[in-house]
Amino acid sequence: MQNQNSNRKNDFIYGRNAVTEALLKTPSRINKILISKNVTNDTKINEIIDLAKKNSVIFQFAPKERFAQYNNVANQGVIAFVSPVSYTDLYEFLNTPKDGYSRVIILDGIEDPHNLGAIIRTAACAGFDAVIIPSRRNAQVNATVEKTSAGAINHIPLIQVNSLSNAIDKLKDNDYWIIAADAHGKDNYFDIDYTDMNFALVMGGEETGVSKTNIKKSDFIVKIPMLRNFNSLNVSNAACAIIYESLRQDITKARKK
Amino acid sequence: MQNQNSNRKNDFIYGRNAVTEALLKTPSRINKILISKNVTNDTKINEIIDLAKKNSVIFQFAPKERFAQYNNVANQGVIAFVSPVSYTDLYEFLNTPKDGYSRVIILDGIEDPHNLGAIIRTAACAGFDAVIIPSRRNAQVNATVEKTSAGAINHIPLIQVNSLSNAIDKLKDNDYWIIAADAHGKDNYFDIDYTDMNFALVMGGEETGVSKTNIKKSDFIVKIPMLRNFNSLNVSNAACAIIYESLRQDITKARKK
Repeated sequence: MQNQNSNRKNDFIYGRNAVTEALLKTPSRINKILISKNVTNDTKINEIIDLAKKNSVIFQFAPKERFAQYNNVANQGVIAFVSPVSYTDLYEFLNTPKDGYSRVIILDGIEDPHNLGAIIRTAACAGFDAVIIPSRRNAQVNATVEKTSAGAINHIPLIQVNSLSNAIDKLKDNDYWIIAADAHGKDNYFDIDYTDMNFALVMGGEETGVSKTNIKKSDFIVKIPMLRNFNSLNVSNAACAIIYESLRQDITKARKK
Repeated sequence: MQNQNSNRKNDFIYGRNAVTEALLKTPSRINKILISKNVTNDTKINEIIDLAKKNSVIFQFAPKERFAQYNNVANQGVIAFVSPVSYTDLYEFLNTPKDGYSRVIILDGIEDPHNLGAIIRTAACAGFDAVIIPSRRNAQVNATVEKTSAGAINHIPLIQVNSLSNAIDKLKDNDYWIIAADAHGKDNYFDIDYTDMNFALVMGGEETGVSKTNIKKSDFIVKIPMLRNFNSLNVSNAACAIIYESLRQDITKARKK
């Protein structure tokens, strides 16, 4: 890991050897690889591309302007953005036996790392089993998220997937019910019984909400009631209201037994 | 207002005439006045001090180093930090008839403007009547808070008070029950019946929690259950869990009638 650390600055690893090594040793920590359009057809770069494909790591070709902000390091036209923690594999997660019902949260386009950190923190506190994050069009787990989560990223499995849609299908195959939060939802979020099922709660991006595809795949669409004629809650607050309602139901039901 | 605007940059007004004018016309928008230690015994400054005292506006004397960041404007040793909205007076608020039970949230040492903005937003969405903020040791309402609140600061009365302790006494005199959120609370937050009383929910600072004095004055101390051995929720998420639990109880109770 020493080579890797020596070529590491904050949230990224740079240079062909360091990125290759990261792909060989800790591919589950790589959020994304950026490759300069000017250095294709290079043996080392081709090796990086092969390894990225093999490990389902997202890579993108980018014009050299995109590398301008990294010119203070010898990036050699390749940069890997890394997470402070290793991601858990979805299949591995699904195959791990759970104690009772399982609850996960799926983030569909959360842009603000502060919101991402706060949601991970709340999910960890409420005993959720995992947070699922798409590898594209969503804030990735970086040092800001680690800080905003107050370290919670080390207390709950984080799963990065290339396709949320496939992940939702896979969850359904594994007996999870899908609950999407949407302002136009049919039911108030507290009118669902969360205590008798495995479920995945899908929270959408700050501006866009849950994508139409994922809304269609959902078994429940829940809304949070608004008492003033005023848009909507911050997404981490909205997630918290629903997450903790499910926990409240659990605790009050357990008492009655 | 033109003079004032011409001497206004973002969240502050500078210069002796502009600050005097702000004190005369819109004292309820001033968060705090900073006066250079080097310019006391000046007629204009003395007038500012008198007006600040008369309007219960906080003022502080500061060494010239504190003014260094404002040297790009002709600050003349006096700067007023202003809120994008006018504050509501506590007494005026208490004397305004309410429709049904009244609910307010009191912030006791919230430091992060993003948390302040998110809490104001949630309180507005849930139909709370006001947010009470101390004029010291708490983030003040500025442009960052306005943005993070998604504009909610314009949808709910904000009350700035010099003493939270006095404000709590005044609320008690007006038949409000005081509910403090604290990790060592006796009851889970969802075991309180919020539907049958006026109440003020006190949320404490990110690091410090609700102050001991205010804990002592509280009628209920509630905690949020934690399922992992992991510290606590982000304060805006914690506030949301409690705020929306009170709303859930209201809505479900109203249905039964």
